[in-house]
Amino acid sequence: MNPNITKHQFSIQKIERSRQKKQTSCVIWLTGYSGAGKSTLANGIDEFLFKNGNHSYVLDGDNVRKGLNSDLGFSDDDRKENIRRVGEVSKLFMDAGLIVIAAFISPYREDRDQVRNIIEPDKFIEIFVDTPIEECERRDTKGLYKKARKGEISNFPGISSEFETPMNAEITVQTENQSITQSVDFIIKELRNLIAMNTSKND
Amino acid sequence: MNPNITKHQFSIQKIERSRQKKQTSCVIWLTGYSGAGKSTLANGIDEFLFKNGNHSYVLDGDNVRKGLNSDLGFSDDDRKENIRRVGEVSKLFMDAGLIVIAAFISPYREDRDQVRNIIEPDKFIEIFVDTPIEECERRDTKGLYKKARKGEISNFPGISSEFETPMNAEITVQTENQSITQSVDFIIKELRNLIAMNTSKND
Repeated sequence: MNPNITKHQFSIQKIERSRQKKQTSCVIWLTGYSGAGKSTLANGIDEFLFKNGNHSYVLDGDNVRKGLNSDLGFSDDDRKENIRRVGEVSKLFMDAGLIVIAAFISPYREDRDQVRNIIEPDKFIEIFVDTPIEECERRDTKGLYKKARKGEISNFPGISSEFETPMNAEITVQTENQSITQSVDFIIKELRNLIAMNTSKND
Repeated sequence: MNPNITKHQFSIQKIERSRQKKQTSCVIWLTGYSGAGKSTLANGIDEFLFKNGNHSYVLDGDNVRKGLNSDLGFSDDDRKENIRRVGEVSKLFMDAGLIVIAAFISPYREDRDQVRNIIEPDKFIEIFVDTPIEECERRDTKGLYKKARKGEISNFPGISSEFETPMNAEITVQTENQSITQSVDFIIKELRNLIAMNTSKND
């Protein structure tokens, strides 16, 4: 750490910002193969939380890569750096009192654990979107599996690089045999046991 | 732009998130020499906004450099990248409906203008904390000027590298001959003419 950097102590801290929003801030982290349904579920969770009066925000692999991480590619090192930065940004959002919903393939256990440690282990809720690779490839909503099979995309998790299944995810959701609404409902039910949710609805 | 990245359309957008918080999100950007008082003023603005019922968050050079930008040094390139990332993070926060208060030396006009363009020109409020370099060096609260004079810190704005004075800052505040409270009051008065502020106070 550079000794010339000193942390400024600010008057309004996470606790006040969270209280203002009548919630406990945390990070809900969705991991799974490309096409598993992470962004769709993130959107569903976000919609529910918003209607419930919570203050949440979605960080999404594709969206973040168009801005903050537009300088990064898809090599192993860049994927690691991508996840590290998202972890740090999630921490800032959490510090601002928000509930962060992060949807990232994040194929490596080590990287997800790094984020857990950046955040605070008990404020990091890992959701494994457990859609089998065969189903993701069958859906291929973005046509990426086709490209990966042709070798046009390298380092593609499940095809040309590893996806390390979570060992201790707080929530595991199977999307294959249920609707999006059913999956979202299942996640919300599980989340209720893990985080305090606001009860004052938005108008 | 990588053609394999597609933007996911989310249901809850900035407008809804801002409305929930009864405010228009924007970025208040404080620029000035090291020791000019940027973080202190950021804290004062933040405290005022919080008490006023607004949802704000401070991004601060020192704090961000301990996390997200801990991989960056102080070379010209790294300073540029530091500011670019903070601009992108500010954009995410703004998208989440918050008022961002960013306190960064940000010595180059080009970099500040880049952030203005990342954000949305009319949502970027540049505040020039116009404390003369002599006064900053006299204060030297962090002892950095002493180090810079000895050559222990290189590329130090005002000593060994440029600080480009803003040409069209929305607000210019002189801190030399007034108290912190007076400077904050002045900024708030000016801000009221530029952004819609919440009127419902926090309990």
